[in-house]
Amino acid sequence: MAVHGGAGANAESMTAEELAAVENALEDCLREAAVFLEGRGSALDCAELVVRKLEDDPNFNAGRGAVFNSRGEHELDASIMDGRDLSCGAVAGVKTVKNPVALARLVMSQTRHVLLAGDGAEEFADENGVERVENSYFSTPARRADWERKQRYSKGTVGCVVRDVEGNLAAATSTGGLSNKKWGRVGDSPIPGAGCYADNRTCAVSCTGTGEEFIRRAIAFDLGARMRYGSMNLEEAALETLAALPDNCGGFIAVDKAGRVVMPYNTPGMSRGWATSSGEMMWGVGQTLKSLLFK
Amino acid sequence: MAVHGGAGANAESMTAEELAAVENALEDCLREAAVFLEGRGSALDCAELVVRKLEDDPNFNAGRGAVFNSRGEHELDASIMDGRDLSCGAVAGVKTVKNPVALARLVMSQTRHVLLAGDGAEEFADENGVERVENSYFSTPARRADWERKQRYSKGTVGCVVRDVEGNLAAATSTGGLSNKKWGRVGDSPIPGAGCYADNRTCAVSCTGTGEEFIRRAIAFDLGARMRYGSMNLEEAALETLAALPDNCGGFIAVDKAGRVVMPYNTPGMSRGWATSSGEMMWGVGQTLKSLLFK
Repeated sequence: MAVHGGAGANAESMTAEELAAVENALEDCLREAAVFLEGRGSALDCAELVVRKLEDDPNFNAGRGAVFNSRGEHELDASIMDGRDLSCGAVAGVKTVKNPVALARLVMSQTRHVLLAGDGAEEFADENGVERVENSYFSTPARRADWERKQRYSKGTVGCVVRDVEGNLAAATSTGGLSNKKWGRVGDSPIPGAGCYADNRTCAVSCTGTGEEFIRRAIAFDLGARMRYGSMNLEEAALETLAALPDNCGGFIAVDKAGRVVMPYNTPGMSRGWATSSGEMMWGVGQTLKSLLFK
Repeated sequence: MAVHGGAGANAESMTAEELAAVENALEDCLREAAVFLEGRGSALDCAELVVRKLEDDPNFNAGRGAVFNSRGEHELDASIMDGRDLSCGAVAGVKTVKNPVALARLVMSQTRHVLLAGDGAEEFADENGVERVENSYFSTPARRADWERKQRYSKGTVGCVVRDVEGNLAAATSTGGLSNKKWGRVGDSPIPGAGCYADNRTCAVSCTGTGEEFIRRAIAFDLGARMRYGSMNLEEAALETLAALPDNCGGFIAVDKAGRVVMPYNTPGMSRGWATSSGEMMWGVGQTLKSLLFK
């Protein structure tokens, strides 16, 4: 499996504390996922588990810690997809749902729809007893300072891709979107095919970066399309897909049906890591990755 | 160019008046588009022009005449895409914008975003002086009866794909969504890559049908991907893309860079037609199409 915490991260411009917090969060996710998968946990459950953890962590731009839109509010997007049957669920523009990825999972399992947006999505949360919080829950002092500087990039979207021991694939992505985004803006994260995709025939993908560039190129779907129709392997397809994006735009993580992982990006850094159910792990923000075999 | 008025249409189950109204509307669009293109109008302008006409026509499920959601309201989705540079714009869940496709065009040209949803999209409409109407403007007696019967299919989404005399491609799609849809539900129509796509390297596509099935397979993008990576022509790619959809799910129209058109569907009927700048036209709802060379 692999995880990312956004392509906005840049080890050089982060303080030592910020970097340590992100690295520790990635390491925690990798350890927990490796144990979960070794215990025959499903790819879909693992993807949700990891993304929920990162939504709860204020060091990432998803759930708690999400960026502010142009009105000083938080609007959250998330999606999840099951590579077994292409079932997927997503929510866009929710303001009070503590864990958007969990609501996306319910859209997948409990409705005939794929994507619910705004107040309708929140009403659906209430119908299903999903935890809601005040919009201010998502705010953190660092996020407010970021908003006030109107910085375009934040620490980033989070995502997870998984191949489980059965060989099934799943992906999930969650975000607060672009800092200072226009009210109502929907990025790639809640769009299957753009910011998230999983298909057992090819690969599972989660993206991070300037969402508009990922939507217009259907990046998450494109990676698997190059594999299926162009007979490329994951590494070849990933290089070509990344090359189709503008410079300094973002990156993605992907795992194929054989368990191979890629984590390319064209920004200065991307917080990311991978782990196997046998306990191998690598993670980091810049070019140098830490590694561990924890069993 | 080609146009569609939805894959929900079925000539056998329509009254003679309903059928004539749809056929006449298609014919009007084709004539106007052919003249426009012969005058060197751009693909992008032509796609918007045609979809606006169909939004204003209560015989289609887009703009005036849109279906009701589960709360008895209208929520409209639309998108537009320019094959020259992959620029695109879309709106989802708007309730008071008379011509959603025109607002989608402004999202494309006036913002750094691709997709605006809900109240944020309506505020953007106001900022740009876009005409707004009461939600009841979209209601028609036929739509209300349809809603009360909770029918799943309506007369359908509208869309247009165009290759202009310069060889540029564009696509646009607009819809009221599924009848009785859950409040906040977003379908494929406002999602580039799902219900709408245009890329000068391959083709322009507009889809109609059960949107969720089009999102999870990124159908509008998939068609071009099969052409680019699988070296298929438009006809071959269209057959395979249609075959990937569940039975009785919908259809799409597409035009490639050479001006070839396909209009496949797997429902009982799809209102559709094509025209060339030299005045050739074919259109209809069921298997038999009318044709005309009007110059």
